[in-house]
Amino acid sequence: MQRRDCIIVKIKFITTGGTIDKVYFDAKNEYEVGPPQVADLLHEANVTFEFEIESVLRKDSLDITDADRELIRQKVAGDPVTRIVVTHGTDTMVQTARKLIGIPGKTLVLTGSMQPARFRVTDAEFNLGTAVAAVQALPPGVYIVMNGQIFDPLRCRKNVADHRFEEIPPTDSILPA
Amino acid sequence: MQRRDCIIVKIKFITTGGTIDKVYFDAKNEYEVGPPQVADLLHEANVTFEFEIESVLRKDSLDITDADRELIRQKVAGDPVTRIVVTHGTDTMVQTARKLIGIPGKTLVLTGSMQPARFRVTDAEFNLGTAVAAVQALPPGVYIVMNGQIFDPLRCRKNVADHRFEEIPPTDSILPA
Amino acid sequence: MQRRDCIIVKIKFITTGGTIDKVYFDAKNEYEVGPPQVADLLHEANVTFEFEIESVLRKDSLDITDADRELIRQKVAGDPVTRIVVTHGTDTMVQTARKLIGIPGKTLVLTGSMQPARFRVTDAEFNLGTAVAAVQALPPGVYIVMNGQIFDPLRCRKNVADHRFEEIPPTDSILPA
Amino acid sequence: MQRRDCIIVKIKFITTGGTIDKVYFDAKNEYEVGPPQVADLLHEANVTFEFEIESVLRKDSLDITDADRELIRQKVAGDPVTRIVVTHGTDTMVQTARKLIGIPGKTLVLTGSMQPARFRVTDAEFNLGTAVAAVQALPPGVYIVMNGQIFDPLRCRKNVADHRFEEIPPTDSILPA
Repeated sequence: MQRRDCIIVKIKFITTGGTIDKVYFDAKNEYEVGPPQVADLLHEANVTFEFEIESVLRKDSLDITDADRELIRQKVAGDPVTRIVVTHGTDTMVQTARKLIGIPGKTLVLTGSMQPARFRVTDAEFNLGTAVAAVQALPPGVYIVMNGQIFDPLRCRKNVADHRFEEIPPTDSILPA
Repeated sequence: MQRRDCIIVKIKFITTGGTIDKVYFDAKNEYEVGPPQVADLLHEANVTFEFEIESVLRKDSLDITDADRELIRQKVAGDPVTRIVVTHGTDTMVQTARKLIGIPGKTLVLTGSMQPARFRVTDAEFNLGTAVAAVQALPPGVYIVMNGQIFDPLRCRKNVADHRFEEIPPTDSILPA
Repeated sequence: MQRRDCIIVKIKFITTGGTIDKVYFDAKNEYEVGPPQVADLLHEANVTFEFEIESVLRKDSLDITDADRELIRQKVAGDPVTRIVVTHGTDTMVQTARKLIGIPGKTLVLTGSMQPARFRVTDAEFNLGTAVAAVQALPPGVYIVMNGQIFDPLRCRKNVADHRFEEIPPTDSILPA
Repeated sequence: MQRRDCIIVKIKFITTGGTIDKVYFDAKNEYEVGPPQVADLLHEANVTFEFEIESVLRKDSLDITDADRELIRQKVAGDPVTRIVVTHGTDTMVQTARKLIGIPGKTLVLTGSMQPARFRVTDAEFNLGTAVAAVQALPPGVYIVMNGQIFDPLRCRKNVADHRFEEIPPTDSILPA
């Protein structure tokens, strides 16, 4: 018989920037990574689980360095919360995800969006929703959740031309991201 | 070591109506359950998994009858797809979910929204995202996914006053929905 | 040569309800006329003219009575501001507009929307914009501004089937609304 | 007595780019001026007047040159339509407006937006609404319509720091934009 305890979990959100947080600054005539949109998105979704948000970086993911990735890893490893969602730009999400492999006892989900959260039509709410469910339902490990799919970071890549993430065919799986 | 095959799953969406599908008809001066919003929402989210959508009912969930629930159960049981999301009005989602318990080999997730999908601010995209990830990540069984949480339908209820779903305290768990 | 003083005018907004203000109440499973949306819409449009908002009624326009129309007329006639926008349901907007004819020295513009302001796709912002410009640019008189057009209330009607306002052909112009 | 013929006018929209048309290109990680948003905005507003849209430029207004302005002037002067709305970036809208002064028999209204039309919260719909009403209601001349106000281009400027247009105080009115 079905038997599952609906324990109310706590989720930690670590934000690093990326398209999901991009806003438009009229004064500069350009977009920039703004404050994390996660808080607004969770509020609009009326979520009832306990959560914390920590803004670690505010960068386009093409600008994220190895030192930045080490910082993210330290933040994740040192956090007492075991279920962590990392919002991140899509261009180097795979690289960062791979750097986070091997932290015991934690379910880590990386997500982001292809269109800024403030757009009228955006994948931000949906993607954050998938990340929130995945981080609760999956066993410890590191996952990328994009385009409605759950990927192993060692076996997926961003398909820039097609604006989506995809699995790497088995024969290519040794290749760097 | 981490090892997970990113099999591209197929998801079936069975729609029954509810607030998520409510549109506004100027000619009638009122909201009504319109065509399923799931297709538009999945398109906007740019999902890449394979899916099918079947509109079984177009009802406010207060109007869903036992015969309707039997119909939904038959549709679910008879469908070859093993991962199924049912969109449903929130008021009687728990009752319908309980009627779906016991179908072997299928992961069923019920979701919906408190504000219509066509609103500028709505929980529809987020909730659909949580359902999509949950239906892929969870073992066979029946689940309600609302407010960012995964509930056992035997142990949750809608808190109408607070506009959210919540776990039923253990001492009340025998009570009907 | 062109010569126009850009006097910053004051605009009064009198709200009476209608679709523009309709929100969705999950607890009741239905929409209702909520608080006036004009304040939020003007804020989002970042307007810089001086304005006041007064909520006189909160009704579906099919429920507006002759006594209500007399109240609106008194409010308009007694207001020291000479440029007034009245937001109103579309079904009886023409009747109310006709009751407001003959107040000297005032430019009155009635507008509303066919889809609630809180929808992701709505005519509310655009219609309010047209009303705001029309009330500043037009000479004293009563006008209906809908569907991007400026109508004489004695010579227009709502075409319910086509969800729009239209001019009454000259031969029909004696007919009541 | 009130007497106004509700002649259905034809409006020409000439688009030149600017923030109103900025979309986000994931592949380039940046915003760019995309196709004109006017058609979508007018469709969503369900307008019923006759109109034409012509895309003359697709530029950030800081990149608009004197040659571009001459091109816009030729397009406006040569167009048989007498009521013309020009959508334009805000940074040099005043300069372009001044170049359009002196074309006889035409009502020209320039507008744009501070936030892209595709954002969930934007001034684009409202501003386009104000322009549409102003171009119908105002006598021949050149006008800037922004922030809900109608400005004489010889006597207004963009206040970049405050993200709005404003009247130039009389003593400064000789100054170039």
